[in-house]
Amino acid sequence: VGSFQPREHQHVRYNPLRDDWVLVSAHRMRRPWQGQVEIPPREDVPRCDLSNPLCPGAARANGEVNPQYTSTFVFDNDFPALQPDAPEPDACSHPLFRAASAQGVCKVLCFHPWSDLTLPLMSLAEIRAVIDQWAELTAELGASYPWVQIFENKGAMMGCSNPHPHCQVWASNFLPNEARLEDRTQRQHLQERGVPMLLEYARLEAQRKERLVVENADWLVVVPYWAVWPFQTLLLPRRHICRLQELSDSERDSLASIMKRLLTKYDNLFEVSFPYSMGWHGAPTGPHLGEDCGHWQLHAHYYPPLLRSATVRKFMVGYEMLAQAQRDLTPEQAAERLRALPEEHHRVRPR
Amino acid sequence: VGSFQPREHQHVRYNPLRDDWVLVSAHRMRRPWQGQVEIPPREDVPRCDLSNPLCPGAARANGEVNPQYTSTFVFDNDFPALQPDAPEPDACSHPLFRAASAQGVCKVLCFHPWSDLTLPLMSLAEIRAVIDQWAELTAELGASYPWVQIFENKGAMMGCSNPHPHCQVWASNFLPNEARLEDRTQRQHLQERGVPMLLEYARLEAQRKERLVVENADWLVVVPYWAVWPFQTLLLPRRHICRLQELSDSERDSLASIMKRLLTKYDNLFEVSFPYSMGWHGAPTGPHLGEDCGHWQLHAHYYPPLLRSATVRKFMVGYEMLAQAQRDLTPEQAAERLRALPEEHHRVRPR
Ligand SMILES: O=P(O)(O)O[C@H]1O[C@H](CO)[C@@H](O)[C@H](O)[C@H]1O
Ligand SMILES: O=P(O)(O)O[C@H]1O[C@H](CO)[C@@H](O)[C@H](O)[C@H]1O
Repeated sequence: VGSFQPREHQHVRYNPLRDDWVLVSAHRMRRPWQGQVEIPPREDVPRCDLSNPLCPGAARANGEVNPQYTSTFVFDNDFPALQPDAPEPDACSHPLFRAASAQGVCKVLCFHPWSDLTLPLMSLAEIRAVIDQWAELTAELGASYPWVQIFENKGAMMGCSNPHPHCQVWASNFLPNEARLEDRTQRQHLQERGVPMLLEYARLEAQRKERLVVENADWLVVVPYWAVWPFQTLLLPRRHICRLQELSDSERDSLASIMKRLLTKYDNLFEVSFPYSMGWHGAPTGPHLGEDCGHWQLHAHYYPPLLRSATVRKFMVGYEMLAQAQRDLTPEQAAERLRALPEEHHRVRPR
Repeated sequence: VGSFQPREHQHVRYNPLRDDWVLVSAHRMRRPWQGQVEIPPREDVPRCDLSNPLCPGAARANGEVNPQYTSTFVFDNDFPALQPDAPEPDACSHPLFRAASAQGVCKVLCFHPWSDLTLPLMSLAEIRAVIDQWAELTAELGASYPWVQIFENKGAMMGCSNPHPHCQVWASNFLPNEARLEDRTQRQHLQERGVPMLLEYARLEAQRKERLVVENADWLVVVPYWAVWPFQTLLLPRRHICRLQELSDSERDSLASIMKRLLTKYDNLFEVSFPYSMGWHGAPTGPHLGEDCGHWQLHAHYYPPLLRSATVRKFMVGYEMLAQAQRDLTPEQAAERLRALPEEHHRVRPR
């Protein structure tokens, strides 16, 4: 048997933020892949296409015509999963049949007027404009709604049906599962150890360095010790911050910079526009604005599906759905690969 | 606004087995789909192909040659995520960096010698042979391992890399996340209400009927009130049963029958070999065999990804990964559609 080597020997790791475990079986990367091969993202997206409802000047499903916007642009999702005026479900007939009201708002935020750009190819000033919008929308919708979920589905593989660079914002009158979970675990950590979990975690990762991908004065990005997706990352501030709107001017600039560096590395990994779902988690809002949020630390999760190449993804299926997530390379191996990649975009740098 | 209509008005529903919630926004089915279209499963699988390592007489990755098996066939996975002799990880350096040992066994169970068959196209006697193997493997591996996860990934869309009809069995020295969760919720339900959760649930669904898909004297299949996947189902016994090996002879026969009926309906829904991941959950084994399992009720989950057609799936992405699962039709609508489908397979019945 010999001594324990994480790259050789399967083990489980604990995720303190979700209070669950992941099975790490790095030796599985050796098995040949004979399964489904994905279609790589199209590279020929037209810059402007008036039949695309996200373009400046295009007509949307509700008949409205988009303005000739030149920076970011926010509008109400034409097919919202949450609406402000849904009636309350009837009283529950039995504890095994419990329904509750869901009210909210779904917005779309276009990052840029051009359809053929993505965040890593945008300028720092352009990314900064997106960050300002995120902060503004969190403040605006968070004035009344307890949770404002900002998320980006990038790439057709992640269910994104429009190549135009954009994200979504869904605000709800309830705390979604992930929010409740992270609220509980972070609260307990602060109680037990007297320091916010993700602040303590960021400090330790900054010292240990083996899971670090990029860092600057205000931020760091790691492949978390408990990562589930092959190249999953966690973007963390170095100081204690509850919500996006608290970011200072310079922290917004340094966030734009670290996002560009991370996303450029992602695109360079398999020389493809890297698909992922990402999203921000900050302290609950609305009625929670007056509460102490000392346990909450703002952070963003990046969940990219690719495993081996631009066309071979990780499937989170049978064992993962029925039992527990399983990963095929260690977080340290993933971080090492991402760290080693250039910070100049493969589509821009001279060949 | 008007009175509450689940098909029209979004709401959240509680899943008592996972202690979480799902957002139901049935009106979302009206939005047009412009996203990724999947490749339908190949229909031309050769019955026997010696280059397929699952076929009788074929050579596997480790050089072994399969016997000329005529019913089911079990062998050790050649690329196991769990192995019996993995060394223990070193003691944890910090509570945010917790690892633990993972030891176990991964087996593959071929359902039938022919590669071009699937469960719904097999005879009742052939399905019964699979059920007997499931019971046997649970008893055998469960003699020492606390958890034995039987699961089937069906279809390339579900990460299955081999069309030959088969499932996997992963036994581990730990209780995986889903097992711990269902153990906790079922235990609490029994304490609070004096009856096993899923026994009470099955009785209520048998009366209410609106989420029922198929039933017989021993079993019923429902689209659970809290289903997340569009056509997700839950297969439940009518009497209290902890583990597969407790099933009587006639219960195994009636299980074969209800599985064939359910899976035939699934294939008939979009006239395609219906992809899914499924798996069995029963009371923990190994050291837990001597404990009281009065709260546990044996059941199988079916998680199929398709939403609109053979090529348009549901994506569980941004909002789902970062916040909460969201579904686009009600469980009652899904059950109604499945109920209405013929129980004769579209590839067999006269046209
Ligand atoms: O073992 P297989 O079929 O090669 O692999 C498949 O099922 C496993 C268990 O659910 C997953 O971890 C893999 O991602 C998937 O491709
Ligand atoms: O809103 P979109 O981009 O049309 O839809 C996409 O994101 C949603 C939120 O994660 C998911 O529910 C959908 O399954 C996915 O296709």
